[in-house]
Amino acid sequence: MDYETPQFFRVMQYANQADRDVVDMVSGSPDWEPPESLREGLVEYARGEPEQFQYPPSVGLTDLREEIAGRRGVDREQVIITNGAGEANHLAMSAGFERFPGSEILLVDPTYPYYAGRASLLGADTRYVPASGDGVPDTETVRECVREETSVIVVNSPNNPLGVTYGEETKAALVDIAETYDALLVSDEVYDHFDYSGSFTSALAFDSPNRVVTNSFSKSLAITGWRVGYAVFPDRQGPRGDLFEDARTRHMLTTVTGSRPAQAAVLHALRETGPAYYEGVRERLRDRITVFTDALDEVGATYTDPEGAFYVMARFPAFPGTFESVELLVDEAGVAGMPGEAFGESRSDWIRFALVSPRVETAADRLAGFL
Amino acid sequence: MDYETPQFFRVMQYANQADRDVVDMVSGSPDWEPPESLREGLVEYARGEPEQFQYPPSVGLTDLREEIAGRRGVDREQVIITNGAGEANHLAMSAGFERFPGSEILLVDPTYPYYAGRASLLGADTRYVPASGDGVPDTETVRECVREETSVIVVNSPNNPLGVTYGEETKAALVDIAETYDALLVSDEVYDHFDYSGSFTSALAFDSPNRVVTNSFSKSLAITGWRVGYAVFPDRQGPRGDLFEDARTRHMLTTVTGSRPAQAAVLHALRETGPAYYEGVRERLRDRITVFTDALDEVGATYTDPEGAFYVMARFPAFPGTFESVELLVDEAGVAGMPGEAFGESRSDWIRFALVSPRVETAADRLAGFL
Repeated sequence: MDYETPQFFRVMQYANQADRDVVDMVSGSPDWEPPESLREGLVEYARGEPEQFQYPPSVGLTDLREEIAGRRGVDREQVIITNGAGEANHLAMSAGFERFPGSEILLVDPTYPYYAGRASLLGADTRYVPASGDGVPDTETVRECVREETSVIVVNSPNNPLGVTYGEETKAALVDIAETYDALLVSDEVYDHFDYSGSFTSALAFDSPNRVVTNSFSKSLAITGWRVGYAVFPDRQGPRGDLFEDARTRHMLTTVTGSRPAQAAVLHALRETGPAYYEGVRERLRDRITVFTDALDEVGATYTDPEGAFYVMARFPAFPGTFESVELLVDEAGVAGMPGEAFGESRSDWIRFALVSPRVETAADRLAGFL
Repeated sequence: MDYETPQFFRVMQYANQADRDVVDMVSGSPDWEPPESLREGLVEYARGEPEQFQYPPSVGLTDLREEIAGRRGVDREQVIITNGAGEANHLAMSAGFERFPGSEILLVDPTYPYYAGRASLLGADTRYVPASGDGVPDTETVRECVREETSVIVVNSPNNPLGVTYGEETKAALVDIAETYDALLVSDEVYDHFDYSGSFTSALAFDSPNRVVTNSFSKSLAITGWRVGYAVFPDRQGPRGDLFEDARTRHMLTTVTGSRPAQAAVLHALRETGPAYYEGVRERLRDRITVFTDALDEVGATYTDPEGAFYVMARFPAFPGTFESVELLVDEAGVAGMPGEAFGESRSDWIRFALVSPRVETAADRLAGFL
């Protein structure tokens, strides 16, 4: 997996240069409105006093940390605000790799490619546990894969690229495995607001010095470009208080602090946005999933049941998950997806479709018509 | 130098808990207004289309890179937008340490403490070249200090903490030294808009594959908390195109991209802000410098002639640059500065005063009265 020239650039470029109209189902950027209060929050901030334009605390605005801590049922002191979930994830993986024994980071295949890139930046070896047939890793298989060399285990639920959600039992087992094998579980939960199954469980449900949760507002508030994320570390007074300290130091030395306008607007939006906004977005995505999977059913494609996030991964016998297949679908069907091989080996025959386009219905019709 | 619990927190805390009114001359955050167009730019962005809220290119908004490249006389492809100069500096130091031989990073003593922290994060040894009597490093001394082990040389002009500006000859010699000894010169120029001597020369004036310039809008637009900075790397087609590639990869994997609201507003402000704004700020600072150094003259203190940035470093025979002295000045004079020992050894007897307070005159009166 080549993270240096992300493969979606290649697909996007191909789709943009195509001779025909193409529905973009490649990128994972929401195509819907953020809550109105987010815009208000930013305007209000823009009109503030000059001292509000200066450095916030390195670990983030105190009120924002407090707001997040209250929602997640943790202590404010466990929360660090980051430049998106990307930085949160990097800080958690770095701290875990530094503090837990072992030279290896365990990922689930298929995986979000940046995890592998971050592991490589740390000089860690990567080892993969394949997702089972239903898309969730079998915890017994995980247990078999973990070994003395395992320092960090990274999971993502609701999952990109598979669109599945790991339930309570799976998360409990993953925390237990991390504890048993003296490793750190990094649970990336950026799609936590996009659970259609009702089975999503945060790793925070299991108090443990062996787990860090990373998250962001990129998806839940439809602002991937604003870069406000966070990590929740184990109790700072507990046996793994060193993880927070490591992350805090690295954050301070590498980015100093996150961007304050975005932090201030997110705080305002969190306070002012009721459940109806999130439910409305889920409703829209549920409709898209139905339309799209109906078309997949019609053409007899295999697909992983989308219980969360906003991706559908499907397999068409005539079009394995290669760039060539994806390019063919761009040219012939006018639909651009991501080749499965970009996410690892276990689903390299599959293609991922991101449902963040207002033209999911058009895409479904085109695929049904072409196939 | 302990960068983990920055020493200014300790001083600030002491000043805040003092029984009396204290003029804060500790932190380096501007106390003046940003240009009005910056606020406008943010409000305009807040009212934009939702697609403008999504990921910008990882290396930054194309128009912002273009705008910066045009002003700096470089190619847009050499510019990477970062989460403030802090990240720019970290990326440049990391890439240099990775690509140039040697295990050592050379810093000027006294130094901005984060450089030492970043070197330590990279596992590099640090070596110090003392600033000469006038505050500028003597280039012959630098040449003597550089050795085979030197991988990266970091300088800052206009300088924090000394308030001096390195002229053309010094900068030319530093670039030459880097070339001669196969090292990378990282020239941090965040105070470039605060040159009162007219002698400031950017390292960009000397085209070389051995220098990277880092900068930000934190000081020039009075927005330390917005986190918009940049680095200018050597020609990407040249012998050191690998430096940009290293930085781009690290940036992508650790922060993904910088915050877009701040980038958009900075772009607007750059386009709309004329020289009068910057000149007005310099005028204000020149006045403060005069008032403050007059008081220092009055009490017979030694100080480094402030030609740039917004710091004055001074020595009072009875108050060496320790925390104890600083605390005494807080209690007895009602003025808080930073102990010189926080910046290294060569000026550990000195105290740094940041002129970013509307009460510089009060501070000057108090010091003159007390001493």
